[in-house]
Amino acid sequence: MKIPKAIQLVTESFERLPGIGPKTAERLTFYLLHVPQGELDRFAKSVQNLKIGTITCSTCFNVGEIDPCDLCQDTRRDHSILCVVEQPLDVIALEKSRKFQGIYHVLHGKIDPLNNIGPDEIRIAELVNRVKGERVRVKEIILATNPTMEGEATAMYIAKQLKAANADVKISRIGRGLPIGSDIEYADPTTLERAMEGRSEY
Amino acid sequence: MKIPKAIQLVTESFERLPGIGPKTAERLTFYLLHVPQGELDRFAKSVQNLKIGTITCSTCFNVGEIDPCDLCQDTRRDHSILCVVEQPLDVIALEKSRKFQGIYHVLHGKIDPLNNIGPDEIRIAELVNRVKGERVRVKEIILATNPTMEGEATAMYIAKQLKAANADVKISRIGRGLPIGSDIEYADPTTLERAMEGRSEY
Repeated sequence: MKIPKAIQLVTESFERLPGIGPKTAERLTFYLLHVPQGELDRFAKSVQNLKIGTITCSTCFNVGEIDPCDLCQDTRRDHSILCVVEQPLDVIALEKSRKFQGIYHVLHGKIDPLNNIGPDEIRIAELVNRVKGERVRVKEIILATNPTMEGEATAMYIAKQLKAANADVKISRIGRGLPIGSDIEYADPTTLERAMEGRSEY
Repeated sequence: MKIPKAIQLVTESFERLPGIGPKTAERLTFYLLHVPQGELDRFAKSVQNLKIGTITCSTCFNVGEIDPCDLCQDTRRDHSILCVVEQPLDVIALEKSRKFQGIYHVLHGKIDPLNNIGPDEIRIAELVNRVKGERVRVKEIILATNPTMEGEATAMYIAKQLKAANADVKISRIGRGLPIGSDIEYADPTTLERAMEGRSEY
């Protein structure tokens, strides 16, 4: 059976997205066949304008609509405390928790030798320069890269770089331990180890 | 934190797709931020042209590029045996198995009272008319709706309609039982019941 070219093209586009396999791509495409043309046009236009309508902040490298971004321009935030994350999505997640009132630095990746991503491929040099150059003195840098092998290595590398640059800042790592709502019985040994190390006084 | 409008629009478009929640929609959108503009344009264009580049076959109601579709025009196929399915995706799945050499009829749905879909909303009347009107006499109709509550009810309803129309055809239902590679231990009672009923001589 010959699958129409128009269907094949959409399926292939979906398949290129992360976490979407051939079956899901097919299912999404055939779903779209039942959607009004107006909505398809809106979908198409939004994808086309995605990058045109966003810019990377030249200070924190988060994505935004203006440069410097809203967060960097916000004088109500504490500019002396800087949170380093891997991705713009991490900023959104942390902002949703409403706990952090400082500013951010987005690395756009992690050191990942297996995928040929070295320290120069991500925004580490920019972070070091930023800490030295900021008008408001940065007092603390929270390294909030993911608690994975690569994330830990990236955090360690950044800490080393900052110390080598003689930056007079407190460097901390985001807390690791049992996630809320989880079960000690099912927690993995490394998480439990970290949870023991990171215990707090009651 | 204000999420850029351009990002919001793409996220909302993805969220409307079946099986894609807010988190996945966000992840897909931020992935697209790293994709070259040319690829975004191709993605957008494919979505926009999806419906323009496809038509519904006026005989079998499958989606295709020409009318009648490739399958209906194919004289090497057995036009005396008709397989009734719910969706165009079912045609693709059956074609991949290479077992069926007849032609199809796509209902575009199933009788589903809970979602206000009655027999008139799907292509049942067209099926009955087709069986009566076909130049090549249809000898067998295989009802290959899904083995779900709604699919079974739809198959039963169609069988009744065909009998009421005095159509001189054999009506069969696609085999139900244990899927290949599965485990009797984990099979649900209804599947086992059907597997027993549908046993074949060795």
